[in-house]
Amino acid sequence: MFVVMKKDSGKEELSNVTQRVKEFGLATQLAHGTERTVVAVLGTTTALPDLRESLELMPGVEEVVPITKPYKLSSREFQPENTVVKIGDISIGGNEVVVMAGPCAVENEEQIISTAQAVKAAGAVILRGGAFKPSTSPYHFRGLGEEGLRMLAQAREKVGILIITEVLSAKDVELVARYTDIVQIGTRNMQNFALLDEAGDLRKPVMLKRGMSATIQEWLLAAEYILSRGNHQLMLCERGIRTFETYTRNTMDISAIPAIHHLSHLPIIADPSHGTGKWHLVTPLSLAAVAAGADGLIIEVHPTPDTALKDGAQSLNFDNFKRLMAKLAPVAEATGRKIASPLGRCPEFVHER
Amino acid sequence: MFVVMKKDSGKEELSNVTQRVKEFGLATQLAHGTERTVVAVLGTTTALPDLRESLELMPGVEEVVPITKPYKLSSREFQPENTVVKIGDISIGGNEVVVMAGPCAVENEEQIISTAQAVKAAGAVILRGGAFKPSTSPYHFRGLGEEGLRMLAQAREKVGILIITEVLSAKDVELVARYTDIVQIGTRNMQNFALLDEAGDLRKPVMLKRGMSATIQEWLLAAEYILSRGNHQLMLCERGIRTFETYTRNTMDISAIPAIHHLSHLPIIADPSHGTGKWHLVTPLSLAAVAAGADGLIIEVHPTPDTALKDGAQSLNFDNFKRLMAKLAPVAEATGRKIASPLGRCPEFVHER
Amino acid sequence: MFVVMKKDSGKEELSNVTQRVKEFGLATQLAHGTERTVVAVLGTTTALPDLRESLELMPGVEEVVPITKPYKLSSREFQPENTVVKIGDISIGGNEVVVMAGPCAVENEEQIISTAQAVKAAGAVILRGGAFKPSTSPYHFRGLGEEGLRMLAQAREKVGILIITEVLSAKDVELVARYTDIVQIGTRNMQNFALLDEAGDLRKPVMLKRGMSATIQEWLLAAEYILSRGNHQLMLCERGIRTFETYTRNTMDISAIPAIHHLSHLPIIADPSHGTGKWHLVTPLSLAAVAAGADGLIIEVHPTPDTALKDGAQSLNFDNFKRLMAKLAPVAEATGRKIASPLGRCPEFVHER
Amino acid sequence: MFVVMKKDSGKEELSNVTQRVKEFGLATQLAHGTERTVVAVLGTTTALPDLRESLELMPGVEEVVPITKPYKLSSREFQPENTVVKIGDISIGGNEVVVMAGPCAVENEEQIISTAQAVKAAGAVILRGGAFKPSTSPYHFRGLGEEGLRMLAQAREKVGILIITEVLSAKDVELVARYTDIVQIGTRNMQNFALLDEAGDLRKPVMLKRGMSATIQEWLLAAEYILSRGNHQLMLCERGIRTFETYTRNTMDISAIPAIHHLSHLPIIADPSHGTGKWHLVTPLSLAAVAAGADGLIIEVHPTPDTALKDGAQSLNFDNFKRLMAKLAPVAEATGRKIASPLGRCPEFVHER
Repeated sequence: MFVVMKKDSGKEELSNVTQRVKEFGLATQLAHGTERTVVAVLGTTTALPDLRESLELMPGVEEVVPITKPYKLSSREFQPENTVVKIGDISIGGNEVVVMAGPCAVENEEQIISTAQAVKAAGAVILRGGAFKPSTSPYHFRGLGEEGLRMLAQAREKVGILIITEVLSAKDVELVARYTDIVQIGTRNMQNFALLDEAGDLRKPVMLKRGMSATIQEWLLAAEYILSRGNHQLMLCERGIRTFETYTRNTMDISAIPAIHHLSHLPIIADPSHGTGKWHLVTPLSLAAVAAGADGLIIEVHPTPDTALKDGAQSLNFDNFKRLMAKLAPVAEATGRKIASPLGRCPEFVHER
Repeated sequence: MFVVMKKDSGKEELSNVTQRVKEFGLATQLAHGTERTVVAVLGTTTALPDLRESLELMPGVEEVVPITKPYKLSSREFQPENTVVKIGDISIGGNEVVVMAGPCAVENEEQIISTAQAVKAAGAVILRGGAFKPSTSPYHFRGLGEEGLRMLAQAREKVGILIITEVLSAKDVELVARYTDIVQIGTRNMQNFALLDEAGDLRKPVMLKRGMSATIQEWLLAAEYILSRGNHQLMLCERGIRTFETYTRNTMDISAIPAIHHLSHLPIIADPSHGTGKWHLVTPLSLAAVAAGADGLIIEVHPTPDTALKDGAQSLNFDNFKRLMAKLAPVAEATGRKIASPLGRCPEFVHER
Repeated sequence: MFVVMKKDSGKEELSNVTQRVKEFGLATQLAHGTERTVVAVLGTTTALPDLRESLELMPGVEEVVPITKPYKLSSREFQPENTVVKIGDISIGGNEVVVMAGPCAVENEEQIISTAQAVKAAGAVILRGGAFKPSTSPYHFRGLGEEGLRMLAQAREKVGILIITEVLSAKDVELVARYTDIVQIGTRNMQNFALLDEAGDLRKPVMLKRGMSATIQEWLLAAEYILSRGNHQLMLCERGIRTFETYTRNTMDISAIPAIHHLSHLPIIADPSHGTGKWHLVTPLSLAAVAAGADGLIIEVHPTPDTALKDGAQSLNFDNFKRLMAKLAPVAEATGRKIASPLGRCPEFVHER
Repeated sequence: MFVVMKKDSGKEELSNVTQRVKEFGLATQLAHGTERTVVAVLGTTTALPDLRESLELMPGVEEVVPITKPYKLSSREFQPENTVVKIGDISIGGNEVVVMAGPCAVENEEQIISTAQAVKAAGAVILRGGAFKPSTSPYHFRGLGEEGLRMLAQAREKVGILIITEVLSAKDVELVARYTDIVQIGTRNMQNFALLDEAGDLRKPVMLKRGMSATIQEWLLAAEYILSRGNHQLMLCERGIRTFETYTRNTMDISAIPAIHHLSHLPIIADPSHGTGKWHLVTPLSLAAVAAGADGLIIEVHPTPDTALKDGAQSLNFDNFKRLMAKLAPVAEATGRKIASPLGRCPEFVHER
């Protein structure tokens, strides 16, 4: 951390700054430039953010410039090798691209089972489906709740496919974790810290979506909540950010995929369905995400998108999903990877606390 | 709602669209333009969003254009007269500008009581202070919890000032409501639906901050969660939105103040401390907010901002807050209003469920 | 276009609206919903935008909803088949992916010729290089001007490679067009209408970059300026948009690639160098852009990026560019395309007015 | 400027960095932290940006952190006292708030003269009106050109009011400057460097609008283009920035007003008409801008906004403008200022080159 002093600051102000740094148990070193003096703060402490804010307000201080990243456990510096999340035979974050697919919301048994069969047949290894649905309006469908979880579990057993589903609230984490292979935390909850704490106490894979206006750094700090409580089975999911563009529902930040790989060891999944909001953009963005190195995709698929209770306009029907999978394999191979193959049968649930 | 058919769409596609509308119990009317045919959907139903999505996917459909606003109870059309939230002698949403002030976080008894005294002396009627603090990083100070609530209540009794404090999690709503006059829902939780549901079940004033990337419409829909469960003691708070500008922490959307007054009957408070992130911008933005019609302000004040545990750089010290209050009164008067006067003593807590 | 009347609007207001529409020579049709009356405006006129604004202000009018897109000549509806821009043997917008590469700025003869040789050897067919450089600060390098153009032309002849270079000002369009195969209009000039008019009068290929905060619709309207003056040799270039994210210089909107292919017949090139601002993200984003269907790439390459006069941090050196090209070919093939091969020799300049 | 070395960087990399700095004629000083070594670069040079880019790419370098602001002449450090632009008896940047008002576009003699009379009667001192209009679509009205300038000049003489009008292109700067008291550079041209150069060569007041997605720093750098060529009669204009919000046309960044006053000595004008795009928000945002310290306002006023050729929806009619002016005076007084009074008669044109 550097403290840049104002041009017209005096000796007393400088000495107050170095004194303050000492009070936090750290050392300083001075650099006298032609225009300004700069104080380098040497050493580190968990109170660094507090010291920073304190210094920013001292007389004579122009600016405080941090130089170390605020996230630790999620950083590639901390752990150079990739995190690989394993569920039975499936590895996420390794050399295989894992495809998750299914409806936005679980609507009924037939819908979820037929979708599970169709997406598995096309090559998906994980079934997605919302039982607890976030909804911008209180007047919209908010999901079937535990009944939806039971239908997912039924599809899991019957079809032989892993499942991922979202949890909306800290109090439901245990419940959801009992039914699912991967617990999803959605974009609106990326900074729901009570929920992150609960997810950090799980011993089960978690997928953390990027907040719709979160920077990459904030996203990694949210990941830090989960990692710092001991849950290392964590993957991230880019699902589009909010910009001024209105043609697409969000702007899919494909550069976040290689950026996360550069900054962190965590696997990164891409969600082109929410990322674009338009079904006809899902296939090209899926190919782009895999070409950019995504460890997996999560895609909305519905037997009849035009009657879907939620997000129909961004869902693929079975045929379109099949076509997408056919196009995906050569792109994965072109980048030296392959698409993970569907399971024979599901592993037992693993989940200890 | 209108369904715009594609240029090259045929009779059968058109008839399928009108058929689908009928299945939802609504009528249609056709307008044949020179280039396109448009189907007007007549009548309304709670399933409108589902119908819309369904229509968007039908063959031959170019676009579906909604014409009614999705929020109801919060709209000015629904309730033309202003909502006025009353707490003892204080009215929020009437002709007086209500000033809330205090530290970002409650740190200790002395800090919160001295601040309560100072802000009351300067003209504030409500003390703010965080006991549960949202923190981007898990390594930062997260608040004193219930101990902080107790200190706030102590300041309330001793100094004679109402209090507002934030709740972060659905499970803490009851606890926080026992101590505070106004329950605050922060920007990161604007779409924490479990929390909104709980706040809707309260019978106590709630202040709902705008999500940092929420549109005005989404904000009113979040308000709808609370109103639709019967809690009408609701006020909104503009606290800056996220843009590309980096000089300020957020971009304070002053236009949201008159926009909310135009679209809704709910009171609107302005938070220039989080809105700008720089203490030297707090005063001009406070004046601007009041000139634009804000029903109140919420300002960060700290005895010694340079030692504050959180958000010091955006806090005023006592002197600067006093100066702000002196400047505020004439601006309020210039717009035909006045600053609400501090209480003699606090009313009893009111809170039934 | 629809005119949605207010709930409480009366007969006279309705009749004024239909009267106004008639004054513009158009017909109306009424739809009386349960809540509101809506007036459909039938027919079209070039004065439609004026009519719209006029209607928006009339008493009793709630909202005016346009239904036709404001761009015409650039739309896929107007021209269903792809525009293919041909320069000698090179086709842009066909089945081959065209790679343009070179330094941000032309610095000297040796630099530009060695780069031309290196990028051609690696498979690029077009050399990029700025002679007129836009610079945020007046104190930075602004390019060599016509001397730079001459160096580019020299490289063209000597190496046998087409060239693309930017024009910054309407008055320089003729000059730049004399030297270059493709005239580039940069992001800051997407709405420099005097420049667009001049480019529209050229009979030479133009590449129009997206404004850094332009919507796709505004971009197509800027294209319309060029097309409507008769220059149909036009291609677009996505170069990243401005968002709140600060890790990348811009956020590369990969979804704009398939979106443009959906809405328009114009070819679309991707610029991952400006799109990301970080050289280590250029390769993954290049692969992503091609996977998403980009008709070409424009990449910054410099012999020694760490001594480059401009944008060194986002430039590849020769080795990295070679590695990128090696990775690109299989991705192009995986999506049924191939990389265009370098020319034997350059065609004569074609440019009539 | 600081060069932060990577954790694992070695002595040779460090020595290369200090060597590179020396090649630019500057000195270094080392700070060895517990985790990293940092090189402080002492002294300054115009080649600093080039040095920075060069250092960023060197092996072993983690990050380069600049500490001096890139703008000079526009900074408050460079000139502590306010710039006051004088035109006859009118001072912009002093203690009086200057109101500019008039139609978006000059349409005909009667419209511009009646508007000039009305806005002067209500208290405006400067008439705005576009003769050259930027238009997103080539099919919309683009202004009357020189004929419009003549009408403005006629209104100036007849009514006794100063005028401001926009110039779109470098080649028209001389022409426009012959007719107008203040030359306006619009948001789309904030980085039209050819135009900025021409405006810098003028000896006549210029108003530079903020680019719709420009940071405050980029805006000041654009100002630097004009100042560095010797034109110091410069004022800035905040007109709203582009965000995700769609209810308003732009998001008016009121905090930019005190921020500019903090960072720079240049006067700042607010444009709530373009800033909001809705006439009913113009008055509250005007009051807010003045309360925040704006040196002036520029407001769209039209005799009959519902028949305006451009931007009718954001224009006030004469009555509403009169009401706005009546509300403005007390707010200006509440902040210790007053509204500048209309002229008796216009001064001669001053304009030397």
